[in-house]
Amino acid sequence: MAELVEIAAADDPRLADYRDLRDVQLRKHLEAEHGLFLAEGAKVVRRAIEGGFPVRSFLMAPRWLDGLADVLATTDAPCYVVSEALAEEVTGFHVHRGALASLVRRPLPSVADVLDGARSVVVLEEIVDHTNVGAIFRSAAALGFDAALLAPRCADPLYRRSVKVAMGAVFSLPWTRLTEWRDALPALSAAGFTTVALTLADDSAPIEEAVAGLDKVALVLGSEGHGLSARWEQAADRRAIIPMAAEIDSLNVAAASAVACYVTARR
Amino acid sequence: MAELVEIAAADDPRLADYRDLRDVQLRKHLEAEHGLFLAEGAKVVRRAIEGGFPVRSFLMAPRWLDGLADVLATTDAPCYVVSEALAEEVTGFHVHRGALASLVRRPLPSVADVLDGARSVVVLEEIVDHTNVGAIFRSAAALGFDAALLAPRCADPLYRRSVKVAMGAVFSLPWTRLTEWRDALPALSAAGFTTVALTLADDSAPIEEAVAGLDKVALVLGSEGHGLSARWEQAADRRAIIPMAAEIDSLNVAAASAVACYVTARR
Repeated sequence: MAELVEIAAADDPRLADYRDLRDVQLRKHLEAEHGLFLAEGAKVVRRAIEGGFPVRSFLMAPRWLDGLADVLATTDAPCYVVSEALAEEVTGFHVHRGALASLVRRPLPSVADVLDGARSVVVLEEIVDHTNVGAIFRSAAALGFDAALLAPRCADPLYRRSVKVAMGAVFSLPWTRLTEWRDALPALSAAGFTTVALTLADDSAPIEEAVAGLDKVALVLGSEGHGLSARWEQAADRRAIIPMAAEIDSLNVAAASAVACYVTARR
Repeated sequence: MAELVEIAAADDPRLADYRDLRDVQLRKHLEAEHGLFLAEGAKVVRRAIEGGFPVRSFLMAPRWLDGLADVLATTDAPCYVVSEALAEEVTGFHVHRGALASLVRRPLPSVADVLDGARSVVVLEEIVDHTNVGAIFRSAAALGFDAALLAPRCADPLYRRSVKVAMGAVFSLPWTRLTEWRDALPALSAAGFTTVALTLADDSAPIEEAVAGLDKVALVLGSEGHGLSARWEQAADRRAIIPMAAEIDSLNVAAASAVACYVTARR
């Protein structure tokens, strides 16, 4: 059973994991150095713990204790009980969903382990927005993808905002970081995957045609701004587009990835 | 040619249209009473004006003037030129994309006018998040939908955040507000549309089956939280789901609407 610890001072050092949650740069340093990440909201906290991540601590106002009682019963980690005003003062924003937990990151699995048995994987080259990373994880998991691979520059799926938007899919969908960018797609091809890059290249085929009849597929998504790198665009086995109306800006990356995952999963 | 007016005081009354852009309640009152809306970013400002909306004024730092010179040449509205620090002080946030414009709302067209000639329309019952409204407009326009209808409780497509996320699609996709909620779907059926509600109802069919072979389709989307109202769910001619993996939360409404629009547009 978690130990309930009432805290009344915003500068209490035990609250260090929860400071200034809107300061992305500060959080990146803090989370990397301490090997932690945050889950926000009772549902997401529950899923993180069900996903096997060890808890460092919880932080919540008294009214959230009952709803998480069964979760608190599973651990000896401290649960810091604070007023909502104090929570806001420490974190820097109004914590709508009430409960926070600080969890321990685990070593990432190998690419081979993540790909073992997978038939549909999504590969993110340089999605830099945490909301988009979370949205892609949620869609990929919901639409039946088996795994995600992230290039070195892709944003962190365990950053608070990614975790929240993914609604826990970052805990359930197997994923890891590619250690090597340059030849990552040929390596996937060598592993038996047809790499299909979503891009506006001249030789792109409609996504339904591009994935028709394929066995193992790696769906490759670029960045929100400039899209895929030239290297990855050219290295992919196939290039695909989502057919769109004329004179319209492309879909945003979250919408495009949802459509592409849907079509690919139903190939 | 817009008149360039340098302003150095944050309390200058000519900047009233641009105050406190993060204060949603204040902005709703201000925009409704003055019949205005804001466009943010050079690209979106340009599209609003190309869409025929009259300009009340512009607000921008000097470095954005050149890029919008051709747009400024088309109007006699004042362009308030301010430092970036002053823009931030007035609006309440850092204006990343530099240029803002305050534009005049136009009377909404009739439902009949919006439906005239349309084959695929999206109907939003109670999407309350401006980001989601904007995302749905963008996806619907990109994927070939002809129009959007909004129930009385749906969030405002011309709110700054909706406009920004839609990347201008709120100007190009014909839309209007339904004045009547209760019998809106039967009225659409009477107008020759098959109403297809996206919902997790027991009798929902996979979306591809639900729309196969239909002529005019009205794709009906509920709210982010509790989904469609019981009345609309039951009043729809058909109920449809996007097939999903077991034990996974549903797709978010922006992802689900992108997939549903894609499938419906290709029926």
